[in-house]
Amino acid sequence: MGKYLDEIDSPSDIRKLNISQMKELAEELRGEIISRVSQNGGHLSSNLGVIELTISLLSKFDVEGNDQIVFDVGHQSYAYKLLTGRKDRFDTLRQFEGISGFPRRAESPYDFFDTGHSSTSISAALGLLRAKRLKGDSGKVIAVIGDGALTGGLAYEALNDAGQFGENLIVIINDNLMSIDHNVGALSRKLASMRSSWRYIHIKTVGERVLLKIPILGKALLRLGSFLKDSVRIAMRANHPVIFEDLGFRYYGPIDGHNLPTLLRYVETVKNINKPIILHVCTQKGKGYEYAEAEPSQYHGVAPFDVELGCPAGGCSTFTSAFSQTLVDIARRESRVVAVCAAMKSSTGLDAFQSLFRERFFDVGIAEEHCLTMSAGLAVNGMIPVVVLYSTFLQRGFDQLLHDICLQKLHVVIAVDRAGIVGADGETHQGLYDLPMLLTMPGIEVFAPRDYDELERMMNYAVFEAKGPVAVRYPRASESVLFRETAPDAVTKAQLIRKGSAATILSVGILCEEAFRAGEILSEEGIECDCLDLRRVKPLDADAILKSAQKTGIVVCCEDGMYNNGVAAHVSLLLDSVRFPVRFFPIGVNDHSVPAGSRSFLIKREGMDAESIAETIRKAIRNP
Amino acid sequence: MGKYLDEIDSPSDIRKLNISQMKELAEELRGEIISRVSQNGGHLSSNLGVIELTISLLSKFDVEGNDQIVFDVGHQSYAYKLLTGRKDRFDTLRQFEGISGFPRRAESPYDFFDTGHSSTSISAALGLLRAKRLKGDSGKVIAVIGDGALTGGLAYEALNDAGQFGENLIVIINDNLMSIDHNVGALSRKLASMRSSWRYIHIKTVGERVLLKIPILGKALLRLGSFLKDSVRIAMRANHPVIFEDLGFRYYGPIDGHNLPTLLRYVETVKNINKPIILHVCTQKGKGYEYAEAEPSQYHGVAPFDVELGCPAGGCSTFTSAFSQTLVDIARRESRVVAVCAAMKSSTGLDAFQSLFRERFFDVGIAEEHCLTMSAGLAVNGMIPVVVLYSTFLQRGFDQLLHDICLQKLHVVIAVDRAGIVGADGETHQGLYDLPMLLTMPGIEVFAPRDYDELERMMNYAVFEAKGPVAVRYPRASESVLFRETAPDAVTKAQLIRKGSAATILSVGILCEEAFRAGEILSEEGIECDCLDLRRVKPLDADAILKSAQKTGIVVCCEDGMYNNGVAAHVSLLLDSVRFPVRFFPIGVNDHSVPAGSRSFLIKREGMDAESIAETIRKAIRNP
Repeated sequence: MGKYLDEIDSPSDIRKLNISQMKELAEELRGEIISRVSQNGGHLSSNLGVIELTISLLSKFDVEGNDQIVFDVGHQSYAYKLLTGRKDRFDTLRQFEGISGFPRRAESPYDFFDTGHSSTSISAALGLLRAKRLKGDSGKVIAVIGDGALTGGLAYEALNDAGQFGENLIVIINDNLMSIDHNVGALSRKLASMRSSWRYIHIKTVGERVLLKIPILGKALLRLGSFLKDSVRIAMRANHPVIFEDLGFRYYGPIDGHNLPTLLRYVETVKNINKPIILHVCTQKGKGYEYAEAEPSQYHGVAPFDVELGCPAGGCSTFTSAFSQTLVDIARRESRVVAVCAAMKSSTGLDAFQSLFRERFFDVGIAEEHCLTMSAGLAVNGMIPVVVLYSTFLQRGFDQLLHDICLQKLHVVIAVDRAGIVGADGETHQGLYDLPMLLTMPGIEVFAPRDYDELERMMNYAVFEAKGPVAVRYPRASESVLFRETAPDAVTKAQLIRKGSAATILSVGILCEEAFRAGEILSEEGIECDCLDLRRVKPLDADAILKSAQKTGIVVCCEDGMYNNGVAAHVSLLLDSVRFPVRFFPIGVNDHSVPAGSRSFLIKREGMDAESIAETIRKAIRNP
Repeated sequence: MGKYLDEIDSPSDIRKLNISQMKELAEELRGEIISRVSQNGGHLSSNLGVIELTISLLSKFDVEGNDQIVFDVGHQSYAYKLLTGRKDRFDTLRQFEGISGFPRRAESPYDFFDTGHSSTSISAALGLLRAKRLKGDSGKVIAVIGDGALTGGLAYEALNDAGQFGENLIVIINDNLMSIDHNVGALSRKLASMRSSWRYIHIKTVGERVLLKIPILGKALLRLGSFLKDSVRIAMRANHPVIFEDLGFRYYGPIDGHNLPTLLRYVETVKNINKPIILHVCTQKGKGYEYAEAEPSQYHGVAPFDVELGCPAGGCSTFTSAFSQTLVDIARRESRVVAVCAAMKSSTGLDAFQSLFRERFFDVGIAEEHCLTMSAGLAVNGMIPVVVLYSTFLQRGFDQLLHDICLQKLHVVIAVDRAGIVGADGETHQGLYDLPMLLTMPGIEVFAPRDYDELERMMNYAVFEAKGPVAVRYPRASESVLFRETAPDAVTKAQLIRKGSAATILSVGILCEEAFRAGEILSEEGIECDCLDLRRVKPLDADAILKSAQKTGIVVCCEDGMYNNGVAAHVSLLLDSVRFPVRFFPIGVNDHSVPAGSRSFLIKREGMDAESIAETIRKAIRNP
């Protein structure tokens, strides 16, 4: 791996290194991370940005003893993992049963809190610290949070509470001027203005070093310089992000997050102050890898790539790209359509929309709650907002979706991307809960397309025909090309895509493919099944389901989510109302989390693949 | 009602009044609100505090034309309702099909956004404003938000977005120094320091008025006074809550929220500035009603009371008071127990805990998300946090409960108060969604006690025996005294409280009483039923349910929540797995919101009362 990294068996080994050795270590870590992510995929830009910061923290705080660090989101923890006893297993990064792409308490005693979603670190760190103090433990707790994550309301709630608590919680703002896309919000503008003054300070410091090399005149000039620096400091106070001081924190910075001596000095300083502290560290996303420095968004989360050539541009079509095209097409025809997202413009496919309809596009930052309630306001005054969120982040907006959109019966369209199994990001990011959430909301219509044409049809219905709240959920995947049955125009009706009388296979969205293939497998064994693509899962097409159920007497329902509060639960209740004999078998995830792994592997592991579906039906038929 | 109020048929009539007439109008509104709340119950302190503010806003903004006002939470909208065409129906306040205690678009064209939960107003107002601008409408949008609601992260997310937007959104901070209990958080301390300077300004203004009455010398002194005032203004700038300016807002205030001329002047000023504006208005909760001024928390939300005597102290026992006692008892025995709440100390019964264990008590402000994630941190470091939230406010923390507590399998106890039907607060506050949420979380145990003894038993299990996340949900009610069957110690087991073989009646928590009475009613008709109190609803006591189901062949499940994603859904899936014939009938709320009304009336309306349960069973038996 590298001369110095090889010798780091535990974090305390870092303290044996001098500055220049630490710098070499930083370069070794960069090489290791670039090489590993190029093979396994993962978060690149954010991890390359915090290497020096991580070394500084580990050399000044004692995570083997009483100190604890919480990495917000956690997609910047690779260097930390490599330095805390996981370098030998690092080749399993983001693979099933391998090293997680996020901190995991189950993985290492050095991971103190599991993260994955944004903006939790200050709350978690405050809880950790309060518990320490109640136990009489004087250890420190440090939260490392990006400027993007600071746009989340949870971070603010925590700052507001921590500032009052008065204990020495240390919050390190890792300011890289962007969340995943470029950052938004007034606070980020404020931080940006701080960065300008940081550049000024930085020049001063370089100036100092030069001056020190000129012996006599130098020292005199330095005294002048020191006076000048004080003036700058005073000027900076006026330019402070006083927001933090209003919230009860003492603010230090901004400092250069790639300058190890500066980092070490400041980390040492803030460690010994018995107050809530903000240390503002400026870093560069993608630092040390040319392609990532130039295009940090593109290298935020990546699939495997060639280190020499960088990531290929473009890539294959996905539900996201199909959504992107469909939304633009709809927006051309209906000027009331506006698009709203939460710091995920590119990943949700809204770049094209933004460039064509700039005034009708709103990126609110990492702020899913506000995203939904603000959209409710837009809808009340006659717009048709299309809110685009990942399934896992929609979890942040349960109350806003219910209280502000559904109870008011507002015509807001929720586009739920990354629904179902997402793969290597693991348990914190699987899209298993959007169906349980959405099906709970009164009055909402919920759709799941199996292919791009269906996505288009459903989005058109959602915008032009629906009167109240509508959700369309689609996976992180490309469409199936197994069959191209044209779906009927009425998207509210289920569609029979295979016919038979031995059993009924209901499917939700993309799992239509597995259901269809299960039908094919069984057909070869002489068992013919009805395969019914549900299309709209709330309200259900009860007639179609019951008609088939009455014919077959065996119903299987396949969904890529928690089935016990999902579509299966609703189908089960529906079947309770009938007077003919029918047996029901739910397929999906049952009340446990789903770890990292490839999407196809996990679909099989959870029994949602064609063969597992077929086997469920075989068993049902064998045991009447 | 009063001379002036009688003449206000629409808001524009207010503009016909001069200042002294407006003052009289304010007193008439006070009288009307005190009298009505004393008869119907409702929110008193907050409504008495904003009367002058409401008059000022309606006299300066045109809500009949293009301007819109959003009241945060909405429990301060009574004066607004009386002045916008609803005075003749105001006697129906908070009754079934009557005037809601919160703004409701369905109730009046002057209500522009439905509120109920805290901290939504700025997001909503920003959405309303953006839609206006897209439509080329130049109307103004005003959000009126309390200092308490500002502790919610949603408000901050919205400020951060609005400050960047740059348009003239007007945010009025109604600063009464408390949310429901006394306010917490660093920002509220900052606002408090602003109030001190406000008192100073206020004295100055009084001084000015006195000076103006002394003709010649007066004017000279006034010039001096004006100089002094400028100095004060400059001093005040240093004391500004710069947080708002960092977020891109222009800040005005603090001003006296009961001084009509001042209010009118400032409202006129901020109306014409084309920037995001904060106007900081200081009000007194309970203003004008002696008892409420003295004890604003006690008069926040009240049952009917005698105007002369005030509210009776104490009151009858409830699940909340039983919880309060139980928690103190547990905390005495286990020092790791800490209590965490979100601005609801008194209403959730934590006063006693706080006074006995001050260091182990945390009120984080209106910040449910932070409340849960911070508790996760406490649990990681060895504490046993008991988080106390209303069912309806737990909705705010779906992701934090899932991502930070359940995925980490942390031992955090969630005490869910006001679960089920709550009554007069209506659709935004009914506790119908906690079961669908909780049952969706992997690995959590969920309990519902039918009486205080059970609550105690379950809380003891939750703290001393459970290893992972546990929720105990209980209603806004007193326990039943209909039967006093002692429950077995193992709270994980369902308890048979009546025996029979005609049908099985499963019940969740307090509905045990209705189920038991249904059993009695049917028994008189010769139909004997098993009545099974489920006690723990996740995981279910499958053995007990199946044993009874096999005997009776008819199962009814009663829960006071959304049953289609609730306990009924899980029972239905459980019954799908059996090979004996059984018919299942869910009882609860089915996919619609539940309006205001008395608790007993609504329980009957939703078919959850004893007679409705009995009728369901009669029908099932009649139609085999």
